[in-house]
Amino acid sequence: MIIGMDAPRKELQVSAIENGTVIDHIPSKNVFQVIKILGLDLCEEQILFGTNLESKKYGKKGIVKVSNRFFQSEEINKIGLAAPTATLIVIKNYQVVEKKKVEIPGQIEKVVKCVNPNCITNHENMITRFNVVDKENIKLQCHYCEKTTDKTSLEFI
Amino acid sequence: MIIGMDAPRKELQVSAIENGTVIDHIPSKNVFQVIKILGLDLCEEQILFGTNLESKKYGKKGIVKVSNRFFQSEEINKIGLAAPTATLIVIKNYQVVEKKKVEIPGQIEKVVKCVNPNCITNHENMITRFNVVDKENIKLQCHYCEKTTDKTSLEFI
Repeated sequence: MIIGMDAPRKELQVSAIENGTVIDHIPSKNVFQVIKILGLDLCEEQILFGTNLESKKYGKKGIVKVSNRFFQSEEINKIGLAAPTATLIVIKNYQVVEKKKVEIPGQIEKVVKCVNPNCITNHENMITRFNVVDKENIKLQCHYCEKTTDKTSLEFI
Repeated sequence: MIIGMDAPRKELQVSAIENGTVIDHIPSKNVFQVIKILGLDLCEEQILFGTNLESKKYGKKGIVKVSNRFFQSEEINKIGLAAPTATLIVIKNYQVVEKKKVEIPGQIEKVVKCVNPNCITNHENMITRFNVVDKENIKLQCHYCEKTTDKTSLEFI
């Protein structure tokens, strides 16, 4: 009975929402990072998630569906580093009304640790702050110590 | 179309799984705590979650469905403090083969912070350890400093 309802459409492993935002194509290993960055662990709206779902494009993916939440570009782009492949889908009355790609913003705050062990942000209780000097290859220059954190040294806080 | 598939059965907001474990009736505010305690953020199996779902019994609830994972009582009871109302449902071939309540264990490790600011576990990089001296009213005696952490001072790590 249940099989019959769910099996025909893989996309529906995580049910549809009436109004809200779907964040699709999140790398599986970063689903919880995305949740944390967007503060969804404290959100009181209905949230549905799936992780390690099959994706033709990316092998495995995660998906997050948040009811009654609509994100500004500035807010959603905070997940750009954790989920550069993510797609944002705005749903109203069960219909897709907007689709857009997540973008890596020019500045990054809070999300990432500075690679420099001597940086003040690693010693004081301070928010990290970076200028993104290369979006394609991910190079983040620390606002405080000016050292560059890149893809290979990227560590989420 | 999508509405027709999902609306009739509220329980199916989070889809069925073929084999694995469903943890139902988790207090909404502790869903992410439960995920962390069970290490599901690092699990490579397919996981579906919902939070802030309507529950007749508890107002709002969370649910977690993990494919191909079957928990020993000892492992699942670690969530007893975070989700004392939780029910564990074992699924095989889409059928419920076992249901049980989560129990609060006699000993607790790692999950909770000791209330005593002078306790060694709050100063050294040590795992906390408690004897549960009262399961009903939640009283945890620290193995190291012997101070009692109770419901009102319970803080998850």
